[in-house]
Amino acid sequence: MTCGANEWCARFVERHRAALNFATLVLGYVLYLIVGPGFSPPSSCRTNVSCAELKDARRDFLNASPCVDEERLEKLLARVLEASNYGVTEHGKNDTDQNWDFVSSLFFTSTVLTTTGYGHTVPLSDEGKAFCIFYALFGIPATLLFLSAVVQRIMVLVTRQPIAYFHRRWAMSKSVLSVIHACCLAIILTLLFLIIPAWIFITMEKDWNFLESLYFCFISLTTIGLGDYVPGSTHTKEARPHPDLYRLGITVYLLVGLIFVLVMLETCCELPQMRRLRQRFYNENIHE
Amino acid sequence: MTCGANEWCARFVERHRAALNFATLVLGYVLYLIVGPGFSPPSSCRTNVSCAELKDARRDFLNASPCVDEERLEKLLARVLEASNYGVTEHGKNDTDQNWDFVSSLFFTSTVLTTTGYGHTVPLSDEGKAFCIFYALFGIPATLLFLSAVVQRIMVLVTRQPIAYFHRRWAMSKSVLSVIHACCLAIILTLLFLIIPAWIFITMEKDWNFLESLYFCFISLTTIGLGDYVPGSTHTKEARPHPDLYRLGITVYLLVGLIFVLVMLETCCELPQMRRLRQRFYNENIHE
Ligand SMILES: [K+]
Ligand SMILES: [K+]
Repeated sequence: MTCGANEWCARFVERHRAALNFATLVLGYVLYLIVGPGFSPPSSCRTNVSCAELKDARRDFLNASPCVDEERLEKLLARVLEASNYGVTEHGKNDTDQNWDFVSSLFFTSTVLTTTGYGHTVPLSDEGKAFCIFYALFGIPATLLFLSAVVQRIMVLVTRQPIAYFHRRWAMSKSVLSVIHACCLAIILTLLFLIIPAWIFITMEKDWNFLESLYFCFISLTTIGLGDYVPGSTHTKEARPHPDLYRLGITVYLLVGLIFVLVMLETCCELPQMRRLRQRFYNENIHE
Repeated sequence: MTCGANEWCARFVERHRAALNFATLVLGYVLYLIVGPGFSPPSSCRTNVSCAELKDARRDFLNASPCVDEERLEKLLARVLEASNYGVTEHGKNDTDQNWDFVSSLFFTSTVLTTTGYGHTVPLSDEGKAFCIFYALFGIPATLLFLSAVVQRIMVLVTRQPIAYFHRRWAMSKSVLSVIHACCLAIILTLLFLIIPAWIFITMEKDWNFLESLYFCFISLTTIGLGDYVPGSTHTKEARPHPDLYRLGITVYLLVGLIFVLVMLETCCELPQMRRLRQRFYNENIHE
């Protein structure tokens, strides 16, 4: 009985070795994502020049203008920095703890590892910078391995199997079929990962219009990440019931969206026409 | 004679077809890089919220504090934004024309196309955003094609030929030889594209220390591009004799650096050990 179970177990492991390895990779990657924020120094100021320099500038200004209410000036500066899309006010000490929570931290590290890097949050101290370099040095290759493994699996389901199925069924040329498939996939993915998320962001971010939402989705999914629009960092915090859940949702959206952008890219690369195009630019004696 | 010349010409084209196609690709890509800035709307403000909102906030503050010298307040705000690493002052109209010159524009578009996207310059208007989306939509695939063609050619020179040569010469196992080669390449490229540029940036950017320079190089070459350190955007403009040449040099450095980062990545991917590792996570029936 035990022998039979053991044998079955061994055969199960043997048969699903790739799937089990893949599950380990996914778990390990999620762990790396979660552990990173825990170890990183709690620094989320935008620049290190500003913190010291701003204080001096503020003191000078207050000395020269005796009528100014310090609180009022504080408010103006906070608004200036807020309008510049900081998210984190540089000179309010009491904000630091509250802002650098786990979900924001996870959001930050995941944007660094996918090389999006909005720059709405950056390491302030020297240790923070060194940590950021080391975390990315191992994290980015791990992310690439993780993404390529996930993309390979999705490619089988989304591209290779459908093309093979319709090729058998309709007896169409694979070349034409691939192009039709790529176009359909492009339309579906644009709808799912650009148009619908853009609509959702309009309702969540009050001061974004449709073009701005679309611009944010596009700039994020291409991993450009200019950082001029970052959801959840504007000053309408009290209006949103679950800011952490919102941030977590965005993190998941960005990761899944990036995976499907890569699936789309790989689908285009595998088009016979595209292969021929690429071959034209490559050296013939490439595999010598 | 003409027949012989024609025949030679035809044979030359035939033999070097891949090289000629490659040259066309490089030229076309450089043209795309140059044409982009020319067509893009001249908008380089960081956010569009700030421009209107900041003015209101400033007016309110001035009304409430009659003693404040407007010029002094302007200076404080400029310093606040400068310290936040803007480069472009939001409320100085006379600065806009001067700042949005060709080289800055080329720097901006090249960072968008390589998906670095520092965010020190962003499209302000709706047309600017739409242009940015369309430019990137065609530009990023073109960049990927360009980079992959260049990387393939460099791979032959830097990785495949040396390994084949030493394999023949020393009769060593290719597996061991590949690892030794990858380590040597990593050391050389780290020196050439991280350590030496970091030293150069220390001398060029007065307020950067070595860690900050290294951090900038690393964050840029991995295409994270957080944008907290962007060379040439700080306020020591008058101290530098050729700001345009400096920016152009940085653009070239970032592009060449990115190419060699990809060469290093591809070299690691081609290690027999790495191939086996990747194969573990992939589905066996992948090429069905
Ligand atoms: K980026
Ligand atoms: K970025």
